[in-house]
Amino acid sequence: MAKELKELTNREENYSQWYNDLVLKADLAENSAVRGCMVIKPYGYAIWEKMQQALDQMFKETGHVNAYFPLFIPKSFFSKEAQHVEGFAKECAVVTHYRLKTSPDGKGVVVDPDAKLEEELIVRPTSETIIWSTYKNWIKSYRDLPILCNQWANVVRWEMRTRLFLRTAEFLWQEGHTAHATQAEAIQETERMIDVYANFAEKWMSVPVIKGVKSESERFAGALETYTIEALMQDGKALQSGTSHFLGQNFAKAFDVTYTSKEGKLEHVWATSWGVSTRLIGALIMAHSDNNGLVLPPKLAPIQVVIIPIYKNDEELTMISERVNQIKAQLIAKGVSVKFDNRDNQKPGFKFAEYELKGVPIRLAMGPRDYQNNTIELARRDTLTKQVIPVEGLADTVVALLDEIQDNIYQKALIFRSQNTTKVDTYEEFKKLLDEKGGFFLAHWDGTTETEQRIKEETKATIRCIPLDAPAEEGKCMYSGKPSSRRVIFARAY
Amino acid sequence: MAKELKELTNREENYSQWYNDLVLKADLAENSAVRGCMVIKPYGYAIWEKMQQALDQMFKETGHVNAYFPLFIPKSFFSKEAQHVEGFAKECAVVTHYRLKTSPDGKGVVVDPDAKLEEELIVRPTSETIIWSTYKNWIKSYRDLPILCNQWANVVRWEMRTRLFLRTAEFLWQEGHTAHATQAEAIQETERMIDVYANFAEKWMSVPVIKGVKSESERFAGALETYTIEALMQDGKALQSGTSHFLGQNFAKAFDVTYTSKEGKLEHVWATSWGVSTRLIGALIMAHSDNNGLVLPPKLAPIQVVIIPIYKNDEELTMISERVNQIKAQLIAKGVSVKFDNRDNQKPGFKFAEYELKGVPIRLAMGPRDYQNNTIELARRDTLTKQVIPVEGLADTVVALLDEIQDNIYQKALIFRSQNTTKVDTYEEFKKLLDEKGGFFLAHWDGTTETEQRIKEETKATIRCIPLDAPAEEGKCMYSGKPSSRRVIFARAY
Repeated sequence: MAKELKELTNREENYSQWYNDLVLKADLAENSAVRGCMVIKPYGYAIWEKMQQALDQMFKETGHVNAYFPLFIPKSFFSKEAQHVEGFAKECAVVTHYRLKTSPDGKGVVVDPDAKLEEELIVRPTSETIIWSTYKNWIKSYRDLPILCNQWANVVRWEMRTRLFLRTAEFLWQEGHTAHATQAEAIQETERMIDVYANFAEKWMSVPVIKGVKSESERFAGALETYTIEALMQDGKALQSGTSHFLGQNFAKAFDVTYTSKEGKLEHVWATSWGVSTRLIGALIMAHSDNNGLVLPPKLAPIQVVIIPIYKNDEELTMISERVNQIKAQLIAKGVSVKFDNRDNQKPGFKFAEYELKGVPIRLAMGPRDYQNNTIELARRDTLTKQVIPVEGLADTVVALLDEIQDNIYQKALIFRSQNTTKVDTYEEFKKLLDEKGGFFLAHWDGTTETEQRIKEETKATIRCIPLDAPAEEGKCMYSGKPSSRRVIFARAY
Repeated sequence: MAKELKELTNREENYSQWYNDLVLKADLAENSAVRGCMVIKPYGYAIWEKMQQALDQMFKETGHVNAYFPLFIPKSFFSKEAQHVEGFAKECAVVTHYRLKTSPDGKGVVVDPDAKLEEELIVRPTSETIIWSTYKNWIKSYRDLPILCNQWANVVRWEMRTRLFLRTAEFLWQEGHTAHATQAEAIQETERMIDVYANFAEKWMSVPVIKGVKSESERFAGALETYTIEALMQDGKALQSGTSHFLGQNFAKAFDVTYTSKEGKLEHVWATSWGVSTRLIGALIMAHSDNNGLVLPPKLAPIQVVIIPIYKNDEELTMISERVNQIKAQLIAKGVSVKFDNRDNQKPGFKFAEYELKGVPIRLAMGPRDYQNNTIELARRDTLTKQVIPVEGLADTVVALLDEIQDNIYQKALIFRSQNTTKVDTYEEFKKLLDEKGGFFLAHWDGTTETEQRIKEETKATIRCIPLDAPAEEGKCMYSGKPSSRRVIFARAY
C-alpha cells in the first residue's frame, strides 16, 4: 500500500490523472468490460448509499413518494416532444431484438433475426416520456393532483468520452417527476427541489454551491427553465451538481395529459423534473481530496472512525483490544460508525496510509503506553494533525469533532471558492484570468445565445448559471458591450 | 370506491382474475406501454422498500456489502459457461445500436445503421458472467477472499406470458455473488443465505416456507446445487420465493478466476449466488389476501395504522382531530407508522373500504361519542373484527396487537399449508387429489429426471424441492415403483 500510495499522481501536477488514480486506489469504482460502463465497488457504493439515505429522507419530508417505471421506452415516445428528442434520443442504447440462438457453428450465440422487435426500445436516458405516458392514466381530476413521484434508477447515455463517476454510459441517479394543477405550484416545486439539492450539497457533502438558472442554450431539452447548483472543483473548473426543471405544459401536451379543474374546465397539467446522480461522488472527491487521498465529510463517510492497535505481541493486543472494544461500544452507542482494524497481517503504518487514502475522518491509535496512561492518539484526516488525548470522555470528543470536521471541510471549500471567484469587466481580463487562475467569473452578459456561443467557442468557458441571488447591477456585456442588468457566472466546466 | 370494490372478482370464483384486480385496485402496480414491463406504483413500491430495508440489514449482518455492476453484458460472456448460456442467453433484450437519427421524412427518429455495435450487448438477465469477469481482477491471493457482494438492480428476461409481479420482462431484485477459497465455505454461504430468505419469509412476510434443494432439472443454469424456499398460495399452487445457488467452480473456470492459497498453490475460486425479487410482493398478496382486498403483515405494511374521524361538522372535526393528533404522536413515538385520513371529500364508509382494500392492519375510528367517552373503535384487517376500547393505554395496545396480527397471519397460513399438504403413496391418488384439492404433495420419487419429466407432462406438477428436513423413509416411487429413500414435494406452481 505504501508503494501504491506513492503511485498516486500529484494533484498539482496532473489533476485529471490524480482524480483517476484516486478513484481506483481508494476502491471507489473501476471501468468494466463494457465500454463506458463502470463497476461501483463496495466502498464507493457505500458512499452512494449514504447519499441516497439522506436525499430519500429529504424527498419524503417534502411530500414525495418513490415508484418505479420501465427501463425501456418505445422509440416513438421520444418524437412526441420536439426539443426532448433533439436532446436525448440521439446517443442512446437501442434494443432491436429479443432473442439469441445458438450460432450455426454451435460454438456461441447469435442474434436471432426472427426475433426483431416491431418497434425498437430505447434504454431510458431519462424518463419524462414513459412517465408522462403513464400519468395520462392517473390524472383525471384536480383531485388527482399533485403527483409527487421520485424514482431511484439506472439510466444510459451513450457518451463517447467517459470518466469514472463524472461521465459514464450507465449511471445511477434519482429522477423526480411531478404533476401540478397550476403553473405557480410547479414553479414552487422546481424551486423547492433545487433548495433541497443545495442543502444536501452544503450540509452533507460540505460543498458550497451557487443556485441559479441556466441560460436558454444550457436548459434541459424540453424545459422552460432549468435551475442548477454549481460547485467549484479544486482545479478551478465548475461541476453542475444537480438540476431541477420547470417543464411547463410541454410533456402534458405531448402525451395529452389533462385534468378537470374545480370549475369543470379541461386543463393541461404542469410538470417538473429534477435529478442528481452518482456524479455527486465525483464532485465530493474533486472538492476536498488531497495528495494523501480522499477527504470525506463525516456525514457521508462509510467509516467515520477507525481504531488501530499498535502492539508487539499477542498479550499487548489482547490488553489493547479489550479497551478498544469498550471505546467502540461507546462510539456506536452515540451513532458513530467505527471500524476496529485488528488485522494481523498489516503493519500500523500501512493501515494509517490506507485509511488516509480512503478518507476516514478520524483515526484513533492505541499502543501500550497509551494503554498505561489511559490515553489514545487521535488524528484528523482533514487537517492531518494528531494529538494524544484522554480516553475519558472520548466519545463526546469524537462526536463534537465529527461536526467540527464536517464544518471545517465546508469552510475550506468556501474559502477556496471565494478566493477563486473573480469579478471581471473586460473580455481580455476574463480570458487572461481564465487561463491563469480559473474558477468562477462574475461578468456581465448581454443575454443573447449568440454571445454565449462565441465566448464558449473562443474560451471553452460557459455560463454556469444566472445566480438567483445576483443583485441588480447595470453594466455592459464584457463581449458585446451591450447593456446588462446583472452579472452571470462563467467558468470552464466538467 | 364502494363501486370499484364490488368489481373485485371473487377469489373463490377466479383466483387469477381476483389477483389481477387486486394488484390494480390496491394501486400496487400496472402494465406499462412497454410489453411485459410493469409500473410499480407508489403503494406497491413502498412495500418493496420495506422488504429491501429488512433484507439489506440481514445481508449486512451476515457480512455482505453492496456494489453495482453494469446493466449490459457482452454477448460472448454468455457462451463461456455452457449450461448458463442455455438457461439465460435465449429470451433476452439485445442492444445492437447506440444511436438514433432523424428519419428521412423529418418526422421522427430511426435507428442509425452506421451506429451498429461491434459486439451486441445483452441487458442482464442475471449477473454471474459480468461479475465473475470483474472478480478476476479482484482476486489474486487467499487474502482477497471471501468476497461477499450484493447488488440491488433491475434485470430483464423476455417472458412471453407475463403477470404483474409474478412474471414480468423487467423486474427488480437483489443478487448476491460471493467468492470463496473452499468448497465447504461456499456451501456454508449458500445455506446461510437460504436461511436468511426463510427467516425473512416467515418473520416479515408471515409466509411459512419449506426449505429444500431443487432436483437436477430445476437447478439454476450453471449451479451444482440450488436451494429454494417454497411457499403455498391460497389456490393450492406453489410459489418459489427465493433461491440460493452453489455454483462450484463453474464460473471461476469459465472466467479463469484463480487465487494463490496459503500453501502457494494456484486454485480456482468457489462461488455462490442468491436472489429474491419483486415476485415476493406477488407471494405476499396471494398468501394472505381476501375478497375485501390486501391483508398485509404489519412489518411490511407501509401504513400500519390508519385513523379516520367521524364527524358532522367542522366543530366536531376540530375536537376529534386534536385528540387524534395526540394519539398519532404517541404511536409515532413507539415506531408505528400512522396515517390520519382527514380528507373532507370522502365519507368514512368509503375510507373504511379503501384501507381494507389496501390491507392496513389496524383501523381506528373516532366519532363524537367516542370523543366524549374517551374511547376509540379499533378494527383488525386480518380478522375483520372490531371493538371499542379506551384511548388510555392505546399506544401499548396497538404495539402488542401489531405483533399479534403479524403472528396470526403467519399461523393462519401455516394451518392452511398443513391442511393442504398431503402424503400420497400412489400415482392415482396423487392425480386425483392434485385436481380436487391441490397443495403440496409428499411423495416418493425414484430420483430420475425421466420420471420427473413424465409426471410434469402428465399432471403439470413439478418437484418443488427435496426438503432439507425430510426424514429418511424407505418407500417406492409413486410413478415407477423403484426404491426411494425419502419423500419430495410435488405441486403445481407459479
